Amino acid sequence: MTNISRRLLLKLSAISVLAARAVPAAAASTSNTDPLPSWNDSAPKAAIVAFVEKVSKQDSPDFVPEPERLAVFDNDGTLWVEHPMYVQLAFALDRVKAEASSHLEWKTTQPFQAVLEGDMKTLAASGEKGLVELIMATHAGMTSAQFQSIVTDWIATARDPRFKRPYTQLVYQPMLELLAYLRANGFKTFIASGGGIEFMRPWTEQVYGVPPEQVIGSSIKTRFEIKDGAPTLFRLPAVNFIDDKAGKPVGINEYIGRRPIAAFGNSDGDLEMLQWTTLANGMDTKPRFGLIVHHTDAEREYAYDRDTDFGRLDLALDAAAINQWTVVSMKTDWKQIFPGK
Amino acid sequence: MTNISRRLLLKLSAISVLAARAVPAAAASTSNTDPLPSWNDSAPKAAIVAFVEKVSKQDSPDFVPEPERLAVFDNDGTLWVEHPMYVQLAFALDRVKAEASSHLEWKTTQPFQAVLEGDMKTLAASGEKGLVELIMATHAGMTSAQFQSIVTDWIATARDPRFKRPYTQLVYQPMLELLAYLRANGFKTFIASGGGIEFMRPWTEQVYGVPPEQVIGSSIKTRFEIKDGAPTLFRLPAVNFIDDKAGKPVGINEYIGRRPIAAFGNSDGDLEMLQWTTLANGMDTKPRFGLIVHHTDAEREYAYDRDTDFGRLDLALDAAAINQWTVVSMKTDWKQIFPGK
Repeated sequence: MTNISRRLLLKLSAISVLAARAVPAAAASTSNTDPLPSWNDSAPKAAIVAFVEKVSKQDSPDFVPEPERLAVFDNDGTLWVEHPMYVQLAFALDRVKAEASSHLEWKTTQPFQAVLEGDMKTLAASGEKGLVELIMATHAGMTSAQFQSIVTDWIATARDPRFKRPYTQLVYQPMLELLAYLRANGFKTFIASGGGIEFMRPWTEQVYGVPPEQVIGSSIKTRFEIKDGAPTLFRLPAVNFIDDKAGKPVGINEYIGRRPIAAFGNSDGDLEMLQWTTLANGMDTKPRFGLIVHHTDAEREYAYDRDTDFGRLDLALDAAAINQWTVVSMKTDWKQIFPGK
Repeated sequence: MTNISRRLLLKLSAISVLAARAVPAAAASTSNTDPLPSWNDSAPKAAIVAFVEKVSKQDSPDFVPEPERLAVFDNDGTLWVEHPMYVQLAFALDRVKAEASSHLEWKTTQPFQAVLEGDMKTLAASGEKGLVELIMATHAGMTSAQFQSIVTDWIATARDPRFKRPYTQLVYQPMLELLAYLRANGFKTFIASGGGIEFMRPWTEQVYGVPPEQVIGSSIKTRFEIKDGAPTLFRLPAVNFIDDKAGKPVGINEYIGRRPIAAFGNSDGDLEMLQWTTLANGMDTKPRFGLIVHHTDAEREYAYDRDTDFGRLDLALDAAAINQWTVVSMKTDWKQIFPGK
C-alpha cells in the first residue's frame, strides 16, 4: 500500500455533473460495423467473437439458450482503474476528511489521524484491521438511501489525480464495447466485484449499462426500520459478505443461481470466479469462456501483475495458461484504453 | 403444526414428468383479450389494472421508466399452496424417509424418529430447534448441483395429499396471469420468499416464468471447492440468511438494490416487504401498489388468517386497511384457483 497518494477533499456537487460526463454504455457499440473497434485484430478479439458466435447462432452445435447466456465481470482493474489505489479506498479517505469536523477524536486516533495527515505509511501499517475500521466509519451509520446520495455526489465530483478525470471516465473503452457486444447477442451482463455493492450500484447502470439487480459485491449488514413513518434500511458496522476469491463463486450462486458461461477478471481475486465459470462440471457441457485483463501498459494506464498491492495477478496468470483462458495485454491488444481519447 | 399429514415416500423419476405437467407461465395470458380472465370483475382486478396502466403508459403523469418497474412476490400462500404445511417441509419429511436407510441413528433420534413414525405431535413439540435440525440434515451435506437434482426429482413426483396433484399445479392461476400481465407491461417480476432459494430456483422459471436470478429466498452457507477437477459449491449446515419478516426488505435491497413499486404477499411474514415497497419515503414519489391474498375459500383451497401455523395473516391484515393495500378474497375475487379446472 506504499503507492497510496494523497487525495483531494470531497467536493459535493450536483448529480448533473455525472450525467453530463459519464459515457453512456449504449454509445459503446455501433451496429452494422465492428462491434469491438477499440480492440486490435489480435487473438483475444478473435477468441471473443468466435465464442459469442458459437453460443448465440441458432444453427451452432454449441448454441446456448438466451436465459443461460450469463457473463460476469470483475470491476476493479477489469472495467475501471484500480491504481494507485482502489477507487473505493479513495472514496473512504475523502469521506474521513469530509467528516473530520464531526469527529474531532479522529485527529488523535489511528488510522484516521494518518488519513487526515496524509501519512500513508502509517495508514498502510494499520493493515487490514485499520482498513476495516476506515470502511465501517465511512460506509456505515446512515441509511442506504443516504449512502447512495453520498456516493452519487462523490463519484460526480472526485477526480483521479493522474488523469484528472472523473473515475467514471477511467473505465476501459474496449470493455464497454465488450459489454454492449455481449448484450447485443443475448447475454445478460453481471458485475461480480470485491468492491462494495452499494458503492457500485448508484452508477453502474449509467456507466456500464448494468442495472443494480445485476451487480454482486461485498456488503455490510443492514437493519430495516420505520423512521418517522418512512421505511429505511440502516447500514450497520458489520461485514455481511466479502465477494472476493472463493467468495465470488458463492456470491454468483447466491445472486444468480446458475453458472455463467463467461467470466472476465484481472487478478487473483478472480481466480475462483474464472474456475467456477469455465471448468468442466459433470453433465454441463456448454462452451465456456474465461478472460484476464493483463495490465501491461505503464504509459497509457499501468503495468503490474505478480508484485502489487492492488490487483495482484499471479496464480490466476498461471491458471490462465493451464485453462486456456484468454489473456489480454492492454498494451498490444487494445487500441484505446479510455473513452474519448 | 398439528395439521401435518403423512406424506408418501420419495419417488425418484424423470424430470420429464415435471416438464409435461407444469403450466408454462407464458400460456397464462392471452393477448388482445382480458389479461386477467381468472379474476372476477371486482375491486382488486380494477385496482391492479389501474395501477399498471398508470405506471406504464408513456403519457401518464405517474409514468415509471421500465427499469424501475419492479414487482416482488412472496411464494408460499401467495403463488402456491402453503397448507396443510409448507411444501418445503413436506420435501424435508420425504427426504428424511428417503435417507433413513443411510442414517440408522435416526430411528432413535428426535426429531427424525418422529418423522419416520409419522408422529406429528412429537415433531411439532420439537419446535424451531427440531425444524432447523430437520432442514440442515436434509438440505446440507451435498453440492448445490446435487441438491438441485434432488429437488427437481422430488417436485416432479411428489403429490399433494388432498388435491392429488404435483405442487407445481397447486399454483394460483390468477397469480400466474398477474405475473404475465405485469411482464407484458414492462415489469420485472421477482420472488421474495421465506422459502429456500435453492429449493425454488430449479422450477420457478418453468412454473412462474421467473428465472433463478430473480428469486430471493432464505439460504444456507456454501463453500467453493474444486473436487476431482470440477468446481463445486458444497452446502454447509449453517444458516446464511433468513428472508422473512424484516429480512425481506434486507434481502430485496441486497439482491435488487432498489425499491420495487409493487409487492404481493399473504401473511405477516410479508408485512415489512409491503411496508418497504409501498410507504412514502422522502423524495421518491413513484406510485406504489401493495396486495394481500386472503385465504377465504375452504372449499376450493383453504380458509385461514389470524390463527394458523402456516401463513398467519394478522398484523398485515390490519396494516392493509391503514395503508390502502388491496386485499384479495380468494372466494369472491377469483373465478378459478388452480390451472386447468
